[in-house]
Amino acid sequence: MEKNIAPHSKVRVSKRAHYDAETVHDILDKGLVAHVGFVLDERPMVIPMAYARDGDIIYIHGAKAARIIKKNKDVAACLTVTHIDGLVVARSAFHHSVNYRSVVVHGRLRDVTDPAEKERALILVTNHLLPGRWDEVRPMTKKEFNATGVLALEIESASAKIRTGAPVDDEEDYALPIWAGVLTAEQSLGGVVNDDRNIVSELPASIALARQKFNP
Amino acid sequence: MEKNIAPHSKVRVSKRAHYDAETVHDILDKGLVAHVGFVLDERPMVIPMAYARDGDIIYIHGAKAARIIKKNKDVAACLTVTHIDGLVVARSAFHHSVNYRSVVVHGRLRDVTDPAEKERALILVTNHLLPGRWDEVRPMTKKEFNATGVLALEIESASAKIRTGAPVDDEEDYALPIWAGVLTAEQSLGGVVNDDRNIVSELPASIALARQKFNP
Repeated sequence: MEKNIAPHSKVRVSKRAHYDAETVHDILDKGLVAHVGFVLDERPMVIPMAYARDGDIIYIHGAKAARIIKKNKDVAACLTVTHIDGLVVARSAFHHSVNYRSVVVHGRLRDVTDPAEKERALILVTNHLLPGRWDEVRPMTKKEFNATGVLALEIESASAKIRTGAPVDDEEDYALPIWAGVLTAEQSLGGVVNDDRNIVSELPASIALARQKFNP
Repeated sequence: MEKNIAPHSKVRVSKRAHYDAETVHDILDKGLVAHVGFVLDERPMVIPMAYARDGDIIYIHGAKAARIIKKNKDVAACLTVTHIDGLVVARSAFHHSVNYRSVVVHGRLRDVTDPAEKERALILVTNHLLPGRWDEVRPMTKKEFNATGVLALEIESASAKIRTGAPVDDEEDYALPIWAGVLTAEQSLGGVVNDDRNIVSELPASIALARQKFNP
């Protein structure tokens, strides 16, 4: 994997740049949603999508009729996953910032037509958000399988950016009577809302596994 | 405002599409970060950025030396804000979904050079995350002002997509002994981490206002 994680271009503030595969994978694997960018009718387009990673490949899926699936079978794309960890509250507006972890992936989208790869991708995307869910549900029908489009983004380059910790103020500003620090932020999975028509009440294992995977 | 909120193109599943200004503004105003897409060196690029809305304009800012500021002074851009509200756990993999609210804005970036507009934009971006913070901090110096670049995205079109509620399963699947429902998700601001070098301990008003603004 490491050989493919070559940065497309340098991140300007180099102390925030991380290019090792472990860091990149961890940020990708803990994301609920990715923002996928591509050029459609000569306009940049950014769409939030479910996804899953399999080694060097990221899979996205959608209805075959959806524009993003239909029109992007062989185009350049950029996929970004961001976690917001806190608001950095400094003594000057200039030094305000955000604590975050993000990964920007560049690659080319490829239509997944091989049935075995397509099924594996659908399992991965389902299990990315709810680990093990694929085996808990009613099996996918041929009709559903055929109505679903899967695109693979082969990672050509990926770079992570991470900011953590306290604000960094100008030395003379530390003497000012202005409160500074970090206001923490987190995305988390919480309680469940039972479907009115449930005939079973016990929660499936995937719910606890999802909380374990995504919650801080 | 309404006249400008014309959809760039129809959202495929029309029951999820909302084009009224109030819905679009609410989703934009409650976002911590936007994913901004543009074409750089012929490649699509998606970057998470702080932002603020002022009527029909969305401002983003960054160091003048940053590529996104330097190279995008007159280009098409797409700005997307997404809130994830829950994982929709259905009885079949096919009907799994995500509850979310998102806005996709299309427009053109314009370099903000007028000092009055630029200052207003910097105040708005600071106060977007921490309401009232601009007046709590040490005033911005001329040097800081000059080192900061501000871009305005004039909203040409904006569309919101919202999914809420329970899974929608195939009628015959409701008889299956498979749990279904929604696993709720939320982004929230939590506790504060005091800066080690604080000489005051009382939290500023902006902290409580930020929690009030962004927490469910």
